[in-house]
Amino acid sequence: MTRHRATLFSFSLIIVAAAGLATAAAVQDKPAPAARSAAEGGSVGPRYDKDGALLLPADYRRWIFVGSSLGMSYSDGPGMGMEMFHETLMEPTAYQHFVDTGTFREGTMLALILHGSGERVPPMRRGRYATEVHGVEMAVKDSSHRPEKWAYYNFGGMAGLRTAAQAMPKESCYGCHVQHAQRDNVFLQFYTMLAEAAKVPR
Amino acid sequence: MTRHRATLFSFSLIIVAAAGLATAAAVQDKPAPAARSAAEGGSVGPRYDKDGALLLPADYRRWIFVGSSLGMSYSDGPGMGMEMFHETLMEPTAYQHFVDTGTFREGTMLALILHGSGERVPPMRRGRYATEVHGVEMAVKDSSHRPEKWAYYNFGGMAGLRTAAQAMPKESCYGCHVQHAQRDNVFLQFYTMLAEAAKVPR
Repeated sequence: MTRHRATLFSFSLIIVAAAGLATAAAVQDKPAPAARSAAEGGSVGPRYDKDGALLLPADYRRWIFVGSSLGMSYSDGPGMGMEMFHETLMEPTAYQHFVDTGTFREGTMLALILHGSGERVPPMRRGRYATEVHGVEMAVKDSSHRPEKWAYYNFGGMAGLRTAAQAMPKESCYGCHVQHAQRDNVFLQFYTMLAEAAKVPR
Repeated sequence: MTRHRATLFSFSLIIVAAAGLATAAAVQDKPAPAARSAAEGGSVGPRYDKDGALLLPADYRRWIFVGSSLGMSYSDGPGMGMEMFHETLMEPTAYQHFVDTGTFREGTMLALILHGSGERVPPMRRGRYATEVHGVEMAVKDSSHRPEKWAYYNFGGMAGLRTAAQAMPKESCYGCHVQHAQRDNVFLQFYTMLAEAAKVPR
């Protein structure tokens, strides 16, 4: 299946091809104890494999919630498939740094989780709720890895998550972020609670 | 202003009356160091004031994300006002207990954050995103406080958050939860990522 969609992190067409995910390993949500204690205590930054691909952090689903949307798209065209929920989570030590300083420190990681949408499950009568995870993407600030500092990664989702992902081409995401982001390549305009916590304008 | 709405936690009409919030104190998101280190390390349960009102935890906005919805309502009637985003966050040590055991231990706390909805903020062209916080509610399992174990609290929101809230009357929330909740009064059917993390059916 090929699906085109625009996401919070990316202007690009993201091709979720089942064939391309044939080698993807299922990723367990349960973090290793080491990863969890690092997230709770010290600083946590991006890690890469020997080919420079970003490793999917073990504990990203426990990061701090900063924003939510439904059906967000950067194009005016008709929707392709159902609208999805997007949730953005932020690595806790980078979150604390932003709350303290209003800046995204080197090593900042943001995860975007894309969900399907469900409705009319009792007792709900109206509205929609986020169902299965359909994709995971990540934004990472790391000038030691990319001269333009920010890079964007797509870990797939529909047919399982990859455990590592190469950065998307610069023209796929970076250009839109640098042009439209409210602060340092981050779409803070959509992250009300993060701006409020840091007492910065949005 | 009087606003009627049905929420994820509550079947009841919740009256947000500005007059009733005249004494509400603004609550800072930034947690006290003690609260944060407790959340990161040990067990965190509910705390009450001398009148038995639940104290709004200092760090609830850093709890773990478990679910999201837009415009969720338990009634078939026409909507009253704009649809709101609802996000549910779970206290981290109770989350870990649920992941490990599939049960909600005594002291489990879930926070429901209600947001307004915005659209067409560049670069988005379609969809909606969560804007300002319009309300905070909480569900707490504490059989030492309530014989029916679970109680539900409304901390207001539109005109500031209360720092403490008395439990809602049992008939307001409890009856719907005990009837419809997928597991132990919790609407796990809407919390896909929580069910997946704990490997329990949803």
